[in-house]
Amino acid sequence: MPATDQTLAERLLGGDKRALARAISLVENDNPEGWELVREVYPRTGGAAVTGFTGPPGVGKSTLLAGLTKLQRARERTVAVLSIDPSSPFTKGALLGDRIRLAEHFLDPGVFIRSMASRGALGGLSEAALQATLLMDASGRDVILLETVGVGQGEVDIIDHADTVVLVLMPGSGDSVQALKAGVMEIPDVIVVNKADHPLTDTMVREIKSVLALGPHQEWEVPIVRTEAVRGEGIEEVESALGEHRAYIEAEGTMLERRRRNLMNEVLAIATARMRRELEASVRKDPGVQQLLDRVVSRELDPASAATTILEDRRAN
Amino acid sequence: MPATDQTLAERLLGGDKRALARAISLVENDNPEGWELVREVYPRTGGAAVTGFTGPPGVGKSTLLAGLTKLQRARERTVAVLSIDPSSPFTKGALLGDRIRLAEHFLDPGVFIRSMASRGALGGLSEAALQATLLMDASGRDVILLETVGVGQGEVDIIDHADTVVLVLMPGSGDSVQALKAGVMEIPDVIVVNKADHPLTDTMVREIKSVLALGPHQEWEVPIVRTEAVRGEGIEEVESALGEHRAYIEAEGTMLERRRRNLMNEVLAIATARMRRELEASVRKDPGVQQLLDRVVSRELDPASAATTILEDRRAN
Repeated sequence: MPATDQTLAERLLGGDKRALARAISLVENDNPEGWELVREVYPRTGGAAVTGFTGPPGVGKSTLLAGLTKLQRARERTVAVLSIDPSSPFTKGALLGDRIRLAEHFLDPGVFIRSMASRGALGGLSEAALQATLLMDASGRDVILLETVGVGQGEVDIIDHADTVVLVLMPGSGDSVQALKAGVMEIPDVIVVNKADHPLTDTMVREIKSVLALGPHQEWEVPIVRTEAVRGEGIEEVESALGEHRAYIEAEGTMLERRRRNLMNEVLAIATARMRRELEASVRKDPGVQQLLDRVVSRELDPASAATTILEDRRAN
Repeated sequence: MPATDQTLAERLLGGDKRALARAISLVENDNPEGWELVREVYPRTGGAAVTGFTGPPGVGKSTLLAGLTKLQRARERTVAVLSIDPSSPFTKGALLGDRIRLAEHFLDPGVFIRSMASRGALGGLSEAALQATLLMDASGRDVILLETVGVGQGEVDIIDHADTVVLVLMPGSGDSVQALKAGVMEIPDVIVVNKADHPLTDTMVREIKSVLALGPHQEWEVPIVRTEAVRGEGIEEVESALGEHRAYIEAEGTMLERRRRNLMNEVLAIATARMRRELEASVRKDPGVQQLLDRVVSRELDPASAATTILEDRRAN
């Protein structure tokens, strides 16, 4: 049977990179065909090891991912990389420029690389990224690496879809260490200190250790791995740490627990995002809602009462 | 008429600190009386100058606020300070410990100080903080200072309620400067570099200037003010910068525009938060929803289809 007679789903499940790229564009454009496709291939997901990388901009996440990708290919594992750029639509997408570091893998059929930015995802970045991750999983990739910028609470929830979360810092990431200390940033599974040739690396590692020691005692001791990703140093140690964490969550049964919790959060997040979009669309169109908002601005009606009226009206219709 | 015969709303509008404290507790406890009270006093809001302070933990925001409060009192203006602590309920609220720096003002009837943490606000921190701000405004405070931790996108939206947004950094806030540069953190109206006795202050200020120069040209040129808040240095300069920004937005008419946009966002945010809470409550109770989620976990039904089914069921009932 020639390839053209196969459906997009069949080609995707067969591991075809172009089919995967097209499928992701469909979900990114909020095309119903994309959602239908995810529905169709969903039973074939769950096989990939999904690792999420977060950390402030400029610490070298993309270089680290390029190194890990190279190592996985040497081990004959297939890889998919999804980089999420939540930067404002008013900037020029400085983060996406980093993707160039992955360029040496562009021609390898075993490596799939995709970037996704706020301004591209018509139906919400978080939802589109989740659907893209499921499509990459269904296409039979052994390893999925998700990358997003995070410098505190509220980073794009796609990290919640990962089995293992890696926080990447560098000497000088004082704000992030303070955020960990204050509890506004979640404790990750693995911490990487990149650019470890910097003279302040030892100080940084000490600070992180003392912050981790303050937290509640966990059975899993968060490893701190030093890397110089541009020179390829420390990448094997990161891979080992990821492998150990995976073995740990598999042995403890926490991987299934984690995936269950993540999937439930995702269902709720998708439902909430849709409700919010519907609400915003109705607000833009409805002259009654506009009048209500005018009364809020003129201090006649308080915001909570206006919200109550809007919700009651929606229920009545 | 003795004070006890007055209603809580009357005492609040009269500027009574204890009435204000009680009113805020009502909204924090999601008590319907609190919402009713906000509804009643809302027409008397809009008179206060509201400034929001954000920045990584540990940069000295509370010390800066203490200094600004002292200065306002010397000018015979009444002040209310609301500190928002979005740290996880699993940490010990390290941030609230900082409030001790405001202690010298506790007995002054012209100064009202309140902290609010995620774990305290039963109906959502962001909603409770907005309601508290409206109550402080209605109680006739001249100046409202809001403080929250932010190290990137997604800080608590209470900052959106401010007329002027101040980002507080210190030498070593490399992650925040990178976040500004990458566009994941919004450009504030005023930047304060605290702990300016540090030798790296000049480098920091230069970095911030070059990041601001990269952005789109704005008529308002963001001032960068150096402070040593523990020694009271630079506080008057911060006050001047705030006054200039206020004069600018008043003259340009952007203050009304900003307040209009903020109030609209708040109505939508309250409505969305309520929908999400209702959804989560129904999910916890409804055995049908639980079965749906079990099918998602067993990879029979994809998350988006499960969300669709939940939303359709809610509409049908």
